[in-house]
Amino acid sequence: MNTFSVKAFGTEAPEADLKQLTIERREVSDRDVEIDIIFCGVCHSDLHTARNEWHGTVYPNVPGHEIVGRITKIGKGVSKFKVGDIAAVGCMVDSCRECEQCKKGSEQYCEKGNIQTYNGHDKHLNKQTFGGYSERIVVEEDFVLRVPENLDLAATAPLLCAGVTTWSPLKHWNVGPGTRVGVVGIGGLGHMGVKLAKAMGAYVVVITTSSSKVADAQRLGADEVILSTDEAQMKANVNTLNFVLDCVSAQHNINDYLALLKVDGTLALVGAPEHPLPVAAFSLIPTRRSFAGSTIGSIAETQEMLDFCGKHNITSDIELINIQDINTAYERLLKGDVKYRFVIDMASLKR
Amino acid sequence: MNTFSVKAFGTEAPEADLKQLTIERREVSDRDVEIDIIFCGVCHSDLHTARNEWHGTVYPNVPGHEIVGRITKIGKGVSKFKVGDIAAVGCMVDSCRECEQCKKGSEQYCEKGNIQTYNGHDKHLNKQTFGGYSERIVVEEDFVLRVPENLDLAATAPLLCAGVTTWSPLKHWNVGPGTRVGVVGIGGLGHMGVKLAKAMGAYVVVITTSSSKVADAQRLGADEVILSTDEAQMKANVNTLNFVLDCVSAQHNINDYLALLKVDGTLALVGAPEHPLPVAAFSLIPTRRSFAGSTIGSIAETQEMLDFCGKHNITSDIELINIQDINTAYERLLKGDVKYRFVIDMASLKR
Repeated sequence: MNTFSVKAFGTEAPEADLKQLTIERREVSDRDVEIDIIFCGVCHSDLHTARNEWHGTVYPNVPGHEIVGRITKIGKGVSKFKVGDIAAVGCMVDSCRECEQCKKGSEQYCEKGNIQTYNGHDKHLNKQTFGGYSERIVVEEDFVLRVPENLDLAATAPLLCAGVTTWSPLKHWNVGPGTRVGVVGIGGLGHMGVKLAKAMGAYVVVITTSSSKVADAQRLGADEVILSTDEAQMKANVNTLNFVLDCVSAQHNINDYLALLKVDGTLALVGAPEHPLPVAAFSLIPTRRSFAGSTIGSIAETQEMLDFCGKHNITSDIELINIQDINTAYERLLKGDVKYRFVIDMASLKR
Repeated sequence: MNTFSVKAFGTEAPEADLKQLTIERREVSDRDVEIDIIFCGVCHSDLHTARNEWHGTVYPNVPGHEIVGRITKIGKGVSKFKVGDIAAVGCMVDSCRECEQCKKGSEQYCEKGNIQTYNGHDKHLNKQTFGGYSERIVVEEDFVLRVPENLDLAATAPLLCAGVTTWSPLKHWNVGPGTRVGVVGIGGLGHMGVKLAKAMGAYVVVITTSSSKVADAQRLGADEVILSTDEAQMKANVNTLNFVLDCVSAQHNINDYLALLKVDGTLALVGAPEHPLPVAAFSLIPTRRSFAGSTIGSIAETQEMLDFCGKHNITSDIELINIQDINTAYERLLKGDVKYRFVIDMASLKR
């Protein structure tokens, strides 16, 4: 298979800083699309993988799965896109396409494991996949998304992971007009959860540990803000929510948040705390509550979310950086010092 | 309000043995049914309440919420029953009837709390309710069940709690033909779960810690039995079940059982371990699994379950005892030494 070289930013070891590398991309085959990357969002997963915190990282690693760019080349079998189109790539670039989950359009839950945009297994080149911290990417058109024309492209990039990761559970658990939705944790994921749930017509209640986030939560669209450190406020809101989207990756007492759910309510975890969360039987049994989890979203859901965001003019709140500042950005990310997503201006890689 | 005295068996303090007492029952009013109790099942909740292990027990306490008997008197507004009918009473004798849950027929989740058959608040006599370890009980007809004529009455009694507690989640999570259901823990609840799930058309997999229960699980209807102490067996069954009914009240590693669920599968806890169960985020997130709880069932579900059991000739496996042996039975219950439910022959109270 013919390949070509592109500049990228990545890392060669868990402790190493990210630096400029050269990687190989395949030449487009029949159903492939080649994208010149304009913007790439910075997800906390990028950092986890670069530093091998989830184990299994194959080096060199080039992170990035919130990719927006312009199509520069298409294979002759491509029907959905043409050269010059703005397009996007999210967390997956492939899946088995044959299992029950793939067949029903839930590729994110592919029984053989979906092929992640970075640190997945690239069946074409038989090595690890490389992500969006690079000049160009080549992806089969089935895993490429259309981008609404009215959206700011830089602020659109985070929709590809943070957007769909919150959209998918909100849709799956039927959030909409008449539902009272709690969003726990206002960061990259949570701030998208608030915007999306509000636009979906729900009554949105933000639950935060930090009084400094109250005004911002309201600006993002929260109808109500509960301070989780205030026992009286938490107690007053027991049994009041239909659904809770829990975006917290740090350890937290999940029973306090389960208690906010009405009968038959579900709390869906999209943040991934490192240690198990103790769940009291009586948080679930007397009111038939569910404690669930959800990961990213399908390709169809991602497109649906992008189209919805186009219609409602929703993007992420971002801070634009140059690729040369990625190591500093990672340090700030670790401190939660970003409102609410770093996005890399990929023009900086070409300089 | 006029009352009359009946013999009962109960306890006057957490540490005291159960002994014969005299309690008052109200005379039937318009919509009441008076039942001469023939059999009463012995649920682990009886023991928890008698000994104040869940706190809040008001003494004297007369347990018993698996009640089968014959109607001896009806109020003039009663339409569903006549004197001489066989009837049953389960875990509830009333609810607010006005909240969202009551209005949709989910009285077990009454927002004001359903009125439990014992140690609830009796609004008629303004004191604690007294359960089925007694000669007679008076209950409003809306909370009285019809009993199929073909069933053995003694073995029917446990259906009123153990039966509906397993029936309700099996129905709620759509167990039936084409679903693979796991049942964890073969005791009073679990043995009913196996029988019901099998009759509902599911493929039933029993997961047990004890190789001594394999043959019995098969006799009850299990299509397959997994020994949870055998790591290889557990590993081979990861991602294979649509639903797991967890009937274990002891501490157990819930992540091992969550791992058995397919994408979108639910594990519903009906046993109530004393301490919180640590749940790993990765048990839920990558496959959108849910960890849920469920308690008893509605009146409509209880009737539906009884009718289903009549049709499929399903009852509990029981050991019949005299009321005078209740304290010994409690000791045996604590050791799990019963296959699978004690039922009191209430004729013994009249002697």
